[in-house]
Amino acid sequence: MLSKAVKPSVIKNIINKGAVRTVTSLVPGEPNGPSVKTEIPGPRSKELIKELSAIQQSNAVQFFADYEKSLGNYIVDADGNVMLDAYTQISSMPLGYNHPNLLKVFNNDKNMRTLINRPALGVFPGEDWPKKLKDVLLAVSPNLPNVTTMMCGSCSNENAYKNLFIAYRRNERGENVSFTEEENASCMINQAPGAPKLSILSFHGAFHGRTLGVLATTHSKAIHKLDIPSFDWPIAHFPQYKYPLADNVRENAEEDKKCLAEVEDLIVTYKKKGIPVAGIVIEPIQSEGGDNEASPEFFQQLQRIAKKHGAGLLIDEVQTGGGPTGKMWCHEHFNLETPPDIVTFSKKMQIGGYFHNLEMQPATPYRIFNTWMGDPGKMLIVEEILKVVKQQNLLDVVNKTGLKLKSGLEQLQNEFPALLNSVRGRGTFLAMNAANTKLRDDLVNRMKQKGIQSGGCGEISIRLRPALIFQEHHADIFLDTFRQVLKETK
Amino acid sequence: MLSKAVKPSVIKNIINKGAVRTVTSLVPGEPNGPSVKTEIPGPRSKELIKELSAIQQSNAVQFFADYEKSLGNYIVDADGNVMLDAYTQISSMPLGYNHPNLLKVFNNDKNMRTLINRPALGVFPGEDWPKKLKDVLLAVSPNLPNVTTMMCGSCSNENAYKNLFIAYRRNERGENVSFTEEENASCMINQAPGAPKLSILSFHGAFHGRTLGVLATTHSKAIHKLDIPSFDWPIAHFPQYKYPLADNVRENAEEDKKCLAEVEDLIVTYKKKGIPVAGIVIEPIQSEGGDNEASPEFFQQLQRIAKKHGAGLLIDEVQTGGGPTGKMWCHEHFNLETPPDIVTFSKKMQIGGYFHNLEMQPATPYRIFNTWMGDPGKMLIVEEILKVVKQQNLLDVVNKTGLKLKSGLEQLQNEFPALLNSVRGRGTFLAMNAANTKLRDDLVNRMKQKGIQSGGCGEISIRLRPALIFQEHHADIFLDTFRQVLKETK
Repeated sequence: MLSKAVKPSVIKNIINKGAVRTVTSLVPGEPNGPSVKTEIPGPRSKELIKELSAIQQSNAVQFFADYEKSLGNYIVDADGNVMLDAYTQISSMPLGYNHPNLLKVFNNDKNMRTLINRPALGVFPGEDWPKKLKDVLLAVSPNLPNVTTMMCGSCSNENAYKNLFIAYRRNERGENVSFTEEENASCMINQAPGAPKLSILSFHGAFHGRTLGVLATTHSKAIHKLDIPSFDWPIAHFPQYKYPLADNVRENAEEDKKCLAEVEDLIVTYKKKGIPVAGIVIEPIQSEGGDNEASPEFFQQLQRIAKKHGAGLLIDEVQTGGGPTGKMWCHEHFNLETPPDIVTFSKKMQIGGYFHNLEMQPATPYRIFNTWMGDPGKMLIVEEILKVVKQQNLLDVVNKTGLKLKSGLEQLQNEFPALLNSVRGRGTFLAMNAANTKLRDDLVNRMKQKGIQSGGCGEISIRLRPALIFQEHHADIFLDTFRQVLKETK
Repeated sequence: MLSKAVKPSVIKNIINKGAVRTVTSLVPGEPNGPSVKTEIPGPRSKELIKELSAIQQSNAVQFFADYEKSLGNYIVDADGNVMLDAYTQISSMPLGYNHPNLLKVFNNDKNMRTLINRPALGVFPGEDWPKKLKDVLLAVSPNLPNVTTMMCGSCSNENAYKNLFIAYRRNERGENVSFTEEENASCMINQAPGAPKLSILSFHGAFHGRTLGVLATTHSKAIHKLDIPSFDWPIAHFPQYKYPLADNVRENAEEDKKCLAEVEDLIVTYKKKGIPVAGIVIEPIQSEGGDNEASPEFFQQLQRIAKKHGAGLLIDEVQTGGGPTGKMWCHEHFNLETPPDIVTFSKKMQIGGYFHNLEMQPATPYRIFNTWMGDPGKMLIVEEILKVVKQQNLLDVVNKTGLKLKSGLEQLQNEFPALLNSVRGRGTFLAMNAANTKLRDDLVNRMKQKGIQSGGCGEISIRLRPALIFQEHHADIFLDTFRQVLKETK
């Protein structure tokens, strides 16, 4: 068994800007670059899309992948096209495909038994579970002492909202005060006071998942929300900055102020309305909604407002967490006075869940509970991922690649100002705006036809969500192809 | 690689009622019976509970398990106690622990790559995904042509509710009528008409999960719902039968009628109230709420009422599905005129999801969507589970064991009428009432101290949720120990 990360030992020659360079790939055996044989989706993918359409709604499928042949930053599709993947399954493959360390995690009888004997973790956890929680998850906690595991991002946010409601009511009720008979009876029929009118304040453009509770705080695209009943919960404006940031400092600070004032207004209004705000949920960078950033000062002030009004602060790091911004958690860029009350994760972490402080811990069991409460099999995978991240200093790789990628994109927006603007982001968690939606979709598609997978977000944005093993030579390939695509744009 | 199910080849001698009998266990090497060395939880479990309590709320933990040593129907705890498990991780281990076939699933490079390269299934599925959906899941579909995969039971129900809302609004709006500008705008701020006032009708005593949408239809215990805001959705009474059923036919038929009339009343009332019922959700046997059964006639009538009022019928088979009632899906006992519109599953199926008819398929993509949309690694596990179920005729085993277990329990309720009553259920999915809550908790605990794991449900019920490999000799052990515990009850 290989317990250490594979060393970046494979040296390759790639052609970049006409010159042959020697580069070292972190995943041995990676292709030298994309190689496209058919349109994408190709004939085999189209056949499979047809087959899948007989079984489920499948119009979102872009292509079928060959996960046996995919490697590192390269995804291979069913038609044999090799693409450089700067989107990585909507930001959820930190080590890319078929990483040699991950292939070995279950070459181990104990781990295999952990995988197949999936317990009800809240009732019958395995002997090693506390140690895993401590050594794997708490080892990367943003200074929060508790962690609760779940299955996915939506469930993590849903349950975290419940912690916020429970904590808010405990504060109102007083510590150790038990439930009234009226509360016990009324909650069973969905009525106050047992099921109280409480709210979570969210932001326009936010995405926190699609199950009914979190969907009430998601406001990125109408198609996610149409026809689904929702809650009357307050929604504030998220700052919309002017770019480049350095040239718009005053306006953007004004924008922060305006949005923060609205948050405070809404908290007061909803309290009066009889639907108090128990918590505020926010992404460090609004991802699905268009990669909208806000300043550290905005987040610092937001936390002060939350504390002032007795609302918990939940930072949703489902998409930003796990390293792509150059820190393990994006909000660590913000220098908050204290950690947020709750930080949710999923995607790159493989297992869902959230870190939280002791105030958010319910005093009694079964309030935050479900059959599985996460999955020890996924814990073994994230354990190995985090080992590799540490041993190969992948956060440094992210920062190094990110600098090159961002400055390359900035150069492109200067070269093509009619097509691109507002390059932004941290680490390799980068985005830019296209002039309009049609152009954005066209650019993403033509990049794909040249073997580069990126993604859209918001109305007009292109987002990059590469793996943490995306290196400078991958950035070069991305930028060169992007320049070519922009040049070919009519 | 072992592609066929392991044959039940191990012959053992067990002592039953004083006589040595020869029995054949479906999982080779299973212990002969429970063996208890310490109180449960023992000292090691208590130590670990303390350790876990520093990391999360952990008062629901019963003991820590040793998943390396557990085998078949026997769970071994961290103190070396061997228990016969008739609860199996809240009904989610169909083949028990460390089944030899499951240990081999990932001894296969292709399967290992499927496990670690977890895709965003809605966008970049693997080549073999349509075939897996067809060969594994649709092969056991209750005559429904579509299947959508998810991560867990709550997410499956949450998303299925969305299908119900979408289908209901499409019927109201007319096929191929697109969304109005007002709908597109209003849904983004959680308001009608885009986010309409629609409801799901549920039943008192029901359990459909704990995220906010499904929690509005869960009514089994106050502690699940206290302090969490909810929806004003209609709740009908689920039939409460008198036992034995054979002696109470007239009263129970009256009870059906009363409950069905209430369902129809509520549909009419909520329509008038401006919160129309888009769907009805029901468990074939209310599990968490106390193993409450309803008759096939009740379900047939309920379906007629749903159809009459244009509401979809969702049967939640998260706990009942996958074989424990002696059929793959419990509602197949009901002889419905047509299949339900949606059937949700999780637990024993390892992967979450739902079968549905074509009316429930949204016309456009991204309406039922999330990053992972299930997990191909779990699909490989359920594939092997279903192979073993078929090859070893485990539904027959369930029916045979169930008969013995049920008649044994009936005998015990006759012997101890002051302690036990209302034995009920199908297959090995069985339950009974204790005279009161204190006695119920005491019986479950004393059974555990003698090495038998069962579970409580509702206020006064004990539920059995053994694996599908629970055989007659396991039933004997269960019944003998239970008789002893009942005898020792003061």
